[in-house]
Amino acid sequence: MASTPGNVCDQDKAIEHVKSLIRDFPDFPKPGIIFKDICPILKDPNAVRTITEVIAEHIRKNVPNTQAIVGLEARGFLFGPLVALNLNLPFIPVRKAGKLPGKTVQTCYSKEYGKDIFELQEDALTPGQHVVIIDDLIATGGTLVAACELVKQAGCQVKQCVVLVELEDLNGKENVDVPCHVLIKF
Amino acid sequence: MASTPGNVCDQDKAIEHVKSLIRDFPDFPKPGIIFKDICPILKDPNAVRTITEVIAEHIRKNVPNTQAIVGLEARGFLFGPLVALNLNLPFIPVRKAGKLPGKTVQTCYSKEYGKDIFELQEDALTPGQHVVIIDDLIATGGTLVAACELVKQAGCQVKQCVVLVELEDLNGKENVDVPCHVLIKF
Repeated sequence: MASTPGNVCDQDKAIEHVKSLIRDFPDFPKPGIIFKDICPILKDPNAVRTITEVIAEHIRKNVPNTQAIVGLEARGFLFGPLVALNLNLPFIPVRKAGKLPGKTVQTCYSKEYGKDIFELQEDALTPGQHVVIIDDLIATGGTLVAACELVKQAGCQVKQCVVLVELEDLNGKENVDVPCHVLIKF
Repeated sequence: MASTPGNVCDQDKAIEHVKSLIRDFPDFPKPGIIFKDICPILKDPNAVRTITEVIAEHIRKNVPNTQAIVGLEARGFLFGPLVALNLNLPFIPVRKAGKLPGKTVQTCYSKEYGKDIFELQEDALTPGQHVVIIDDLIATGGTLVAACELVKQAGCQVKQCVVLVELEDLNGKENVDVPCHVLIKF
């Protein structure tokens, strides 16, 4: 059953199905960029369940001392809480500037198209915690580098980044100084 | 057990606990607004589980023919996919302008602070579908009115809005022309 990938072979098949749902939109949001649209995945509860379970199982096996899941606005919010709940862990949101109340740590970053500021609440994490960062896509790696920087500023350690989709040609993983686990490569 | 509210009394206690986690930040993001910070809820997996199960159970009982869950960027992305997966339903994101590729329907709206444009992919829903919209907070109701308008433009029916937090003084529910179910009132 695609929804509960029990062994590696079933899991590969389930992830292959998830990959087949992703649509290309050339020249979006600007010329030269091929946008990977993950919306069809969200329409398919079995695909969402597969992603949640595969990521949670990966973390359980490979990063067993994880104490919090950090997710990046906005598409990291779609899968981060699902994985965090599956693992019974806190979910900590990283948001764009001006969205989080209270004292925050901040960092500026460049991404495939444009610049932005990320924020994390100062009291969101407890110094010393081991953290896994979840996002939907790694292109140049700019957003993940920024998120890792924020977690370090909060006195915590990013043990791993887990990403649904990698655009391999952009070599984004090379820019991130922690291991990046990827489910789907293009 | 707080994490699996089995009867109405347990459920009330669990929701009361969730309410106690929400923090006030006066004058954020601008003077005169008291911001309700839901981040501490996300840090507590039992609280996230309570919200997910209570909302899913409400929809199962009261809106049994729901065919899709629509969630609003960005905080509606935190709970929408959790509820959709619990109900084995598609999750359909409504996003800010320029974020969704392909053909979209659009609507402009005013909210408690500022204006914005919401978009929905034209092929996200099938005309005639019954939809429940999920968001974190209802203030003046502007965002929910806009989301209802988008779903109508897509040829579908919003059967109910389900919202985690209501700011009662602002009477936002009166502006929305479908029933709004609220978990926590301030």
